[in-house]
Amino acid sequence: MNKIKVSIIGATGYVGAELVRGLSSHPVFEPLHLVSRTFAGQAYSGIYPVFRGVCDIECSDMSPEEVASDSDLVITALPHGVSSQTVPVLLEAGVKVIDHSGDFRYKDLATYEKSYKLTHPHPELLSEAVYGLPEFYRDELKGARLVANPGCYPTCSLIALAPFLKSGLIDKNSIIIDATSGVSGAGRKADLDYAFCETDESFKPYGVVGHRHTTEISEQCSLLSGGMPGDIKVTFTPHLAPFKRGMLATVYCRPSAEFADVSAEKLHDIYDDYYKNETFVRVLPGKTMPDVKAVNGSNFIEVNAAYDADTGTVKLFSAQDNLGKGAALQAIQAANIMFGLDETTGLKTMVRGI
Amino acid sequence: MNKIKVSIIGATGYVGAELVRGLSSHPVFEPLHLVSRTFAGQAYSGIYPVFRGVCDIECSDMSPEEVASDSDLVITALPHGVSSQTVPVLLEAGVKVIDHSGDFRYKDLATYEKSYKLTHPHPELLSEAVYGLPEFYRDELKGARLVANPGCYPTCSLIALAPFLKSGLIDKNSIIIDATSGVSGAGRKADLDYAFCETDESFKPYGVVGHRHTTEISEQCSLLSGGMPGDIKVTFTPHLAPFKRGMLATVYCRPSAEFADVSAEKLHDIYDDYYKNETFVRVLPGKTMPDVKAVNGSNFIEVNAAYDADTGTVKLFSAQDNLGKGAALQAIQAANIMFGLDETTGLKTMVRGI
Amino acid sequence: MNKIKVSIIGATGYVGAELVRGLSSHPVFEPLHLVSRTFAGQAYSGIYPVFRGVCDIECSDMSPEEVASDSDLVITALPHGVSSQTVPVLLEAGVKVIDHSGDFRYKDLATYEKSYKLTHPHPELLSEAVYGLPEFYRDELKGARLVANPGCYPTCSLIALAPFLKSGLIDKNSIIIDATSGVSGAGRKADLDYAFCETDESFKPYGVVGHRHTTEISEQCSLLSGGMPGDIKVTFTPHLAPFKRGMLATVYCRPSAEFADVSAEKLHDIYDDYYKNETFVRVLPGKTMPDVKAVNGSNFIEVNAAYDADTGTVKLFSAQDNLGKGAALQAIQAANIMFGLDETTGLKTMVRGI
Amino acid sequence: MNKIKVSIIGATGYVGAELVRGLSSHPVFEPLHLVSRTFAGQAYSGIYPVFRGVCDIECSDMSPEEVASDSDLVITALPHGVSSQTVPVLLEAGVKVIDHSGDFRYKDLATYEKSYKLTHPHPELLSEAVYGLPEFYRDELKGARLVANPGCYPTCSLIALAPFLKSGLIDKNSIIIDATSGVSGAGRKADLDYAFCETDESFKPYGVVGHRHTTEISEQCSLLSGGMPGDIKVTFTPHLAPFKRGMLATVYCRPSAEFADVSAEKLHDIYDDYYKNETFVRVLPGKTMPDVKAVNGSNFIEVNAAYDADTGTVKLFSAQDNLGKGAALQAIQAANIMFGLDETTGLKTMVRGI
Repeated sequence: MNKIKVSIIGATGYVGAELVRGLSSHPVFEPLHLVSRTFAGQAYSGIYPVFRGVCDIECSDMSPEEVASDSDLVITALPHGVSSQTVPVLLEAGVKVIDHSGDFRYKDLATYEKSYKLTHPHPELLSEAVYGLPEFYRDELKGARLVANPGCYPTCSLIALAPFLKSGLIDKNSIIIDATSGVSGAGRKADLDYAFCETDESFKPYGVVGHRHTTEISEQCSLLSGGMPGDIKVTFTPHLAPFKRGMLATVYCRPSAEFADVSAEKLHDIYDDYYKNETFVRVLPGKTMPDVKAVNGSNFIEVNAAYDADTGTVKLFSAQDNLGKGAALQAIQAANIMFGLDETTGLKTMVRGI
Repeated sequence: MNKIKVSIIGATGYVGAELVRGLSSHPVFEPLHLVSRTFAGQAYSGIYPVFRGVCDIECSDMSPEEVASDSDLVITALPHGVSSQTVPVLLEAGVKVIDHSGDFRYKDLATYEKSYKLTHPHPELLSEAVYGLPEFYRDELKGARLVANPGCYPTCSLIALAPFLKSGLIDKNSIIIDATSGVSGAGRKADLDYAFCETDESFKPYGVVGHRHTTEISEQCSLLSGGMPGDIKVTFTPHLAPFKRGMLATVYCRPSAEFADVSAEKLHDIYDDYYKNETFVRVLPGKTMPDVKAVNGSNFIEVNAAYDADTGTVKLFSAQDNLGKGAALQAIQAANIMFGLDETTGLKTMVRGI
Repeated sequence: MNKIKVSIIGATGYVGAELVRGLSSHPVFEPLHLVSRTFAGQAYSGIYPVFRGVCDIECSDMSPEEVASDSDLVITALPHGVSSQTVPVLLEAGVKVIDHSGDFRYKDLATYEKSYKLTHPHPELLSEAVYGLPEFYRDELKGARLVANPGCYPTCSLIALAPFLKSGLIDKNSIIIDATSGVSGAGRKADLDYAFCETDESFKPYGVVGHRHTTEISEQCSLLSGGMPGDIKVTFTPHLAPFKRGMLATVYCRPSAEFADVSAEKLHDIYDDYYKNETFVRVLPGKTMPDVKAVNGSNFIEVNAAYDADTGTVKLFSAQDNLGKGAALQAIQAANIMFGLDETTGLKTMVRGI
Repeated sequence: MNKIKVSIIGATGYVGAELVRGLSSHPVFEPLHLVSRTFAGQAYSGIYPVFRGVCDIECSDMSPEEVASDSDLVITALPHGVSSQTVPVLLEAGVKVIDHSGDFRYKDLATYEKSYKLTHPHPELLSEAVYGLPEFYRDELKGARLVANPGCYPTCSLIALAPFLKSGLIDKNSIIIDATSGVSGAGRKADLDYAFCETDESFKPYGVVGHRHTTEISEQCSLLSGGMPGDIKVTFTPHLAPFKRGMLATVYCRPSAEFADVSAEKLHDIYDDYYKNETFVRVLPGKTMPDVKAVNGSNFIEVNAAYDADTGTVKLFSAQDNLGKGAALQAIQAANIMFGLDETTGLKTMVRGI
């Protein structure tokens, strides 16, 4: 089989590095151009020595048109506001695109513009863009030209919530998401806030009101429950913990009036049934709880649930690698679907071990 | 001034070690007997080399009566069910006691017995025991013979919640506490679950329903809001994070009907007013959020609040050292009060720095 | 191509887990029996949740004969003294074996017996066993029936030293190896010494005289330099550092009289020349130094050198993953050779990324 | 007793923070001016929240003359090349000074200028400056006007080596120092190299030839052994490990011809005898080895020794906190001596516990 050529624009951040890792071991995809304005002319393995002998491609500062000319797929890992200008050029040049920014994740323009404090230069693409969560939008991904890779917190939250939203078993006005991310979520940059001596042995909330992922989660909750954007508003609080990779969401909600017989077992059965054919969603047995350690370096996401009968509270738990299922590896999962490959190609045995 | 002699029964666990640290630098207290069945005959500094040259007392396996005979205060750091048998012997021998177990923290016997699955051998002591949170029970501590040192999660949760509970500003049925502890909370033991290779880079919930601290928090919330034990039931979920020391609580609740003008500023003002004379409670300014790093090795606890107007949710945050304000140093704060010392004696400048 | 069936005896330790990881993603090998007396009857993914959906094989307590009956290769990850009894049974049953213990690594029986304080039950196998360092014993591995996988410290030390030993460029009596291992080197066990709260923020030497790997390194240095076992004695000190995986060796030695023009460049050229065809040995350019981070989860090993002209000291540096090139993945590299596969099969793109 | 007023110029780096910590809990010293060009006008506790309620002094950008006018002691934590210009102004203004840079640590001007690639503007001060290692220069410190606080690696190395250098028991040409530092040694700065995601799980050598501390160690080894600067040249290699605070030195050397009966016990006895009256030097018993964990946050330093009879190599080990005994707390120890206080004042019980 001929290799499918994949280029990355914004290749030298942590999401880019995880894309390079995933593409380098993929049997069908292969990395072609690695675009980085800052590191143009340097070997990728000079920036990330871990790739020495694995991916020694020289970074370039090609234009989007040049990148598109001989690529089958372009993955953009650019800041929001930049993606919205670059992606249309790529599409115009006739190449498929998966974008990692927030620029194409919303269906409601106003919510996007309010959340990101930007005017979108190409709002006409919002309806076309497919939200790249394969577990919910698999069919739409098959013929997609433009995929908006979901945010890390949204992926983690929605995998936990969707089975209950879709079946109307939880009170839509009761959703509280308390989530924690590893430090790689802050990106690759020289910033005192993320220096080892500032972050090690630290644990704290941040962006406690108005984090952008709040509106992204809310909109998808609305859509997945069959409603309109804006129907649901979730409460969301992110925290930063001293590990590199990983993300955990603990979700609190109340059962809806229809969910009379709620119990841990019933919650578990709903997960089991909903995800029984999903390779990358691990519904954990019994009281085994999701742990970010178990999904490190992989595209797997773990879920489980509990019910606190004393207060009538449903608790949902999910853990993923913020760079894996939460970003780069989910993009490869989506790419597999876009190109008609088995969805698990190159991803299934990619795990860290201990 | 003559030194006040303090002995510890159960001295070699992590709470014991933090007590030894606090007592060793205290200008009035001094450690006398360090009781440990397992390590009797060994120098304390042989067990914890960090204390070499600081506390080289030889551990003993004295009986409670022997310990009481020449101690002014005995601090017990024993398992629940053991404390309830040892503490009465100490009191009988005429010595003051601060206990670290759950055995004397409850006013409602049935709640204790259900939570700990034990029959209490001395329920008559429950009403006498003072719940050792100086910020709320300072007067009661002054003449106390028996102090029940609060649990770590309860301390962290109650310091965050009390100002609002006392003033009736939050809906008592809406309290959700999402909390995270460092690994020292699991104690000093050979257990694969807490081995470095199992815990580093791990983050997960545990005891997701029915953790014992749930009922302790609920009872104190009830009492602090002026009600009866059992009035309030909170939802509580603990998590384990890869750092040694520290604990953070993120509390979600709804404002009560009376709290019409809720805002971040108003929440902050309530904290500021309530804690303005409290040395060890830091009400953080503006959007600065509590961080476990900032309270490491100290008796300080940090709080701040936020309000999510989109969902009408109040968010309260608090951070402490689980071994400091959450256990051993709070016990010394209580002991200062019990013995008529300035409450901050020996504690105020004990901070870790970076 | 038919899959080659590989079984592991002693499958549930950390080396076993890394073998399972490597075999699960290998295109030709596949794990067959996973033998564990302790965990027989449990799914491997129940012990290591990271393998859920990747390797759900049920562990067994099969006898060596049973394991050998339908396996093409058996890898033993057993304690020394146990391997020496199990491996001969496997060989007798006609299966190829790679052993991870020290039992078959020595050519000199007396050195083994003194180092391990054991009498070897099958000393006749010592001469047959191939020391499984592919970079030096590739030809011998091709037809091997029994491979002794090298120790982690020996692999790291020998890759650094061999090019100079072979060419006689260093004084054989001057070798000092100062090395540091991550905590996984201590194995998977409930041991207070390796508890998170004891190991995090700790750094210390251990086994400072007489660590068993000292004699293994010494013997191989002797053989690789063309001498007899016992010719060379190295000084060796291991340290324990607070990370899970990884090992670094810093080697000090003096140039031999023949090495007149010693310089960093010359040292580097020797490495470059010696390892130019080795996929898994990265000779780092210029002053870029080996870092355990860059080899995490991989079979790569990095080397570089420096020369201190002020004191006439050669410094050699090497970094590997102690479970990767230092154990399980090197075993798979050797297995590739034993079975006539390309030596890099299933290993080349296995890297951790960030 | 009147408080002795101590000011810090360069107060907001990590050494500055540790000075503030030490001064804040000191019974006689108290911090007066905290000078920081960058943070002038901000409360110290705004920069380091850990000091909220402990040290809320507002940082200033006072001139050295202003600082000197009402301070009893000024501690400079400035870059080399800046100290050499600032310190003379302070001395001129009549205040005692402890300097943390390399500018006044050398007796031999040429060595300093070569090591630091600078021309010293005040070489006349080199002979006056006392090298601030109390264990070796206690008498000189008593009347000192200018103290050069030793480097962190030199302190760790010299405490290990001095007893043997002074007694002529080791071959002066055989000294190899392999040392490891925690990340705080790199200072407080926004630098990608020390970002959490780059440093966690990393371990590597750096500055492998020509690190500045090499010549500082060499000169002091020469002086302590009774020789002239330049007599001894040591081999030195630093490494960076993933913990905040702490430093370990592993020193290799050969016994001198006079040291006939070398053994671990004999080495230990020499340490024991030499340091028997030193509060802050812990000579560890038997085979207990120094561990950075045990000296975290303290002014203690631990030593022990071993002898490898197979190769005739003496191994010396020492561990300290790089910011404690290796910098700020040692400065306070020296200050205690300079001002006629008991040398241990404010330092003895400052330990971290677990």
